[in-house]
Amino acid sequence: MIENLHTALRKQSRLPLSLKLKYVLRARLERGEWAVGTRIPTLLELVAEYGVSRATVRAALDELEQEGLIQRTRGKGTFVIGDAAKEHWLMLPTDWQSLVRHIEQLKVRFVTLDSGVGPLPLEVPEQSAGSYWWTLRVNWTDHIPYSINTVYVAKRLADLKKAEFEAEPVLPVMNRYFREELHSATQVLTIRAADALAARTLHLEIGTAVAQALRVARNADQEVVYVARVLYPAKYLSVETRFHPGIEPGTLANTH
Amino acid sequence: MIENLHTALRKQSRLPLSLKLKYVLRARLERGEWAVGTRIPTLLELVAEYGVSRATVRAALDELEQEGLIQRTRGKGTFVIGDAAKEHWLMLPTDWQSLVRHIEQLKVRFVTLDSGVGPLPLEVPEQSAGSYWWTLRVNWTDHIPYSINTVYVAKRLADLKKAEFEAEPVLPVMNRYFREELHSATQVLTIRAADALAARTLHLEIGTAVAQALRVARNADQEVVYVARVLYPAKYLSVETRFHPGIEPGTLANTH
Repeated sequence: MIENLHTALRKQSRLPLSLKLKYVLRARLERGEWAVGTRIPTLLELVAEYGVSRATVRAALDELEQEGLIQRTRGKGTFVIGDAAKEHWLMLPTDWQSLVRHIEQLKVRFVTLDSGVGPLPLEVPEQSAGSYWWTLRVNWTDHIPYSINTVYVAKRLADLKKAEFEAEPVLPVMNRYFREELHSATQVLTIRAADALAARTLHLEIGTAVAQALRVARNADQEVVYVARVLYPAKYLSVETRFHPGIEPGTLANTH
Repeated sequence: MIENLHTALRKQSRLPLSLKLKYVLRARLERGEWAVGTRIPTLLELVAEYGVSRATVRAALDELEQEGLIQRTRGKGTFVIGDAAKEHWLMLPTDWQSLVRHIEQLKVRFVTLDSGVGPLPLEVPEQSAGSYWWTLRVNWTDHIPYSINTVYVAKRLADLKKAEFEAEPVLPVMNRYFREELHSATQVLTIRAADALAARTLHLEIGTAVAQALRVARNADQEVVYVARVLYPAKYLSVETRFHPGIEPGTLANTH
């Protein structure tokens, strides 16, 4: 491995040096290089390894300690107490039924910030005309605000189950009452920087990475019946895909 | 929408104010609020809207201009010239054949940083014993270093097609010659902060969001035959999933 940390840390950058050092140390924790329960190098060893001041190392360790990843013990050293890799707890499934079950199992509490009736947002490709009921919500689980959602439902459907849509997560309600309207759906996941609303709502700093899932469901007539734009703090996210190379369509054609 | 930008921008934070403003303006570009070809508000309008100094607005606009998103024209105003939403060009497929085709179509050039023989990395769950050939590469396409890959192949397979594995992207070679060894595979995608190696290699700042795809393929005996740990700059990434709510397994059981 080619590593040149001194140069990389010193590179012209607008981030404070201690913040960069924190990210570098955090990556070592995430990779499991320093396992939970083990002792990490001393302050002086880190000073020597990275060629930075004691104050810089101390500030980086302070932040890791505040995150609950390490604990400093007087005279005994600094120990890993949190599993940095375990932070990715929010599994975003890649099949529909798992997605519905996932939302049901999270035991979401939500706060509605706003709602109304209007057209679809511009970012939805191949729009349908017509009116949509929409709701803007913050979803909480376990005292963590884990997503901010803007969800649209075709008004003719929303009107039929208004009470349910207003009281529950939207997707399970769609799935329970309007399954025959759910013919196909796509989800596009991208990573972007948190803007002011997302940052404040999700307890992040502006500019922190957030994952956006844009889900669009259509009925058999290609009419858009459901749209959700969901923002998650990217650090929580984990997307697991299971492949079946042996049984996928196209396999035979590609086999030699 | 509840927006309180002044407060959010002013919040205690270690990021420079102009950097936070840049992220906020960038989010408006990404959402399509300011479309390509249109004029964005003037410097003084932005000063008034966000309650920050002219120097801060100017610095934020400088960075957006350097990114090729806006262009300032003397006397005529500032115009949107780049599509911020289009940056997410790196599609990561969620089915195996598309993934293989995707790698073939990217016309990857790569630079091998290192390679060797050894055991699997710790982060692979349910390890197999045995020896693996591994290679550490930077992949380029279109003059962009778009991923840094550590790939492992069971040594008994790597030895059979050594020249091909060394000269080509690994996954297509696996798929071409060892299809019968590819029984099942998983991919877990998480977002993390770039460490020094990833930052330097992918031309990012330390701490910038990178997406990690950890792919593990097993044969019918559950032996791990292929592992890839791939890091992408998160800003490029787009993961599209197609759902078929009507025909997925479990559908009938859940229908009322």
